[in-house]
Amino acid sequence: MCQLLGMNCNVPTDICFSFTGFQARGGTTDVHTDGWGIAFFEDRGVRLFLDPQPSSASPVAELVRRYPIRSKNVIAHIRKATQGAIGLENTHPFMRELWGRYWIFAHNGHLVDFAPDLDGSFLPVGSTDSERAFCWLLQELRRRFGSSQPPGAKVFEALHGLTLEIARHGEFNFLLSQGGALFAHASTRLAYIIRQAPFTQAHLKDQDVTVDFSEVTAPDDRAAVIATAPLTDNETWMEMPAGSLWWFEEGRPVQTLATLPGPEKRAGNG
Amino acid sequence: MCQLLGMNCNVPTDICFSFTGFQARGGTTDVHTDGWGIAFFEDRGVRLFLDPQPSSASPVAELVRRYPIRSKNVIAHIRKATQGAIGLENTHPFMRELWGRYWIFAHNGHLVDFAPDLDGSFLPVGSTDSERAFCWLLQELRRRFGSSQPPGAKVFEALHGLTLEIARHGEFNFLLSQGGALFAHASTRLAYIIRQAPFTQAHLKDQDVTVDFSEVTAPDDRAAVIATAPLTDNETWMEMPAGSLWWFEEGRPVQTLATLPGPEKRAGNG
Repeated sequence: MCQLLGMNCNVPTDICFSFTGFQARGGTTDVHTDGWGIAFFEDRGVRLFLDPQPSSASPVAELVRRYPIRSKNVIAHIRKATQGAIGLENTHPFMRELWGRYWIFAHNGHLVDFAPDLDGSFLPVGSTDSERAFCWLLQELRRRFGSSQPPGAKVFEALHGLTLEIARHGEFNFLLSQGGALFAHASTRLAYIIRQAPFTQAHLKDQDVTVDFSEVTAPDDRAAVIATAPLTDNETWMEMPAGSLWWFEEGRPVQTLATLPGPEKRAGNG
Repeated sequence: MCQLLGMNCNVPTDICFSFTGFQARGGTTDVHTDGWGIAFFEDRGVRLFLDPQPSSASPVAELVRRYPIRSKNVIAHIRKATQGAIGLENTHPFMRELWGRYWIFAHNGHLVDFAPDLDGSFLPVGSTDSERAFCWLLQELRRRFGSSQPPGAKVFEALHGLTLEIARHGEFNFLLSQGGALFAHASTRLAYIIRQAPFTQAHLKDQDVTVDFSEVTAPDDRAAVIATAPLTDNETWMEMPAGSLWWFEEGRPVQTLATLPGPEKRAGNG
């Protein structure tokens, strides 16, 4: 399995602290050694760093950890391969363009017998179930709404229906962003924390590193950090219930919808 | 204006030497200070580094210069903005997926009154004429050939027709690759060199750096390096004639087609 890390903020914020703990899980404190990646939105633009090497040994990860890139939306992933060989083309996060915005997607889980009809508008480059799911999601969003972006609530509602479809095929924890909203699906395991005033100290679980957020923030700053497993050991993280889809924007949750399949779907899937 | 750098090889090769000279043009030896970017193909995957800072001062460029990433196809760009604000979303190269392959595009020039019909399948995220041209190229390739990649000769022929259309609107030097072929259009200014056995020493124009390629290559290695202006001062670069479209593969030119507009088009455009 893999691990996910996301951040959604109301002002551009650097993720160096959280990434330091997350990076250690790619070979030092945990076994996710089959590559890693991170995407930073800066307005409409994206910086995407991908490396098929373990993040704990990667010079690119070292750069990301030391070089503060300020972003309102970040998605990172460290990989333990389940489907698809180790290689750059199978390294998350994946990027495509829809409605004149870049979309970034990372997945933790495993989908079985997921072979949707792809019409060619978005095709996987690699061989993961994850990229296939991402391509199908975007294809269906464009099919539903045409070539311009609908309001956020419409996107979230459509994403909910599509997530239900895919989640029937297995474990489907994901993070998805187009630079404004960050959508998170807790299929089995995902937690989040909102950091806002009054800011305090936080201490990493995976490294002996402490940051005092009160020294590096302004009073109105707000950041939601989402991760497969809590990254700090002295803050209270919220476990996201299995089967819940979340819409974060401006550093806080806007809406949540349940994605546990109904009884008839369970039967059909069993 | 901007500067382009491309490399197409028969074996994965690092571009550290050429990039060292190219990077200096982004603020040290030349004026291209409005951002820079570089894309490396590794098989089907792509590493894309973008930075709206001058390349001569960018920690990301420093990483690229020191960390040898081996690739058969590389496209790099340093920017002097003509259309579109300075920002990550307007930083070349641009990336999209077509036919289950990533396509990378960088442009040097200036297009006037180029406002093609975009059907929504590929839309610009930023505001440059360059990204608009790239989106239209991919849209038309997909429209012509459907959802699977045709043979290289068909792609090159179609690209030739599309380049003629766009070149009517102004200066349109570009590099384009899907990881196998590298296509280069010399609208006004582009040069290339083939490095192959017997390998010799090369000395950069923009930095006092020499490399002895005979020490770092195998006898069968072959690399085509393409740049707006020659990068070395002791090798013979071939000037590509204004109005020529080139198809490089496995480190050498495969085919060239003229793109000077015919008399009737000149009349129509005047």
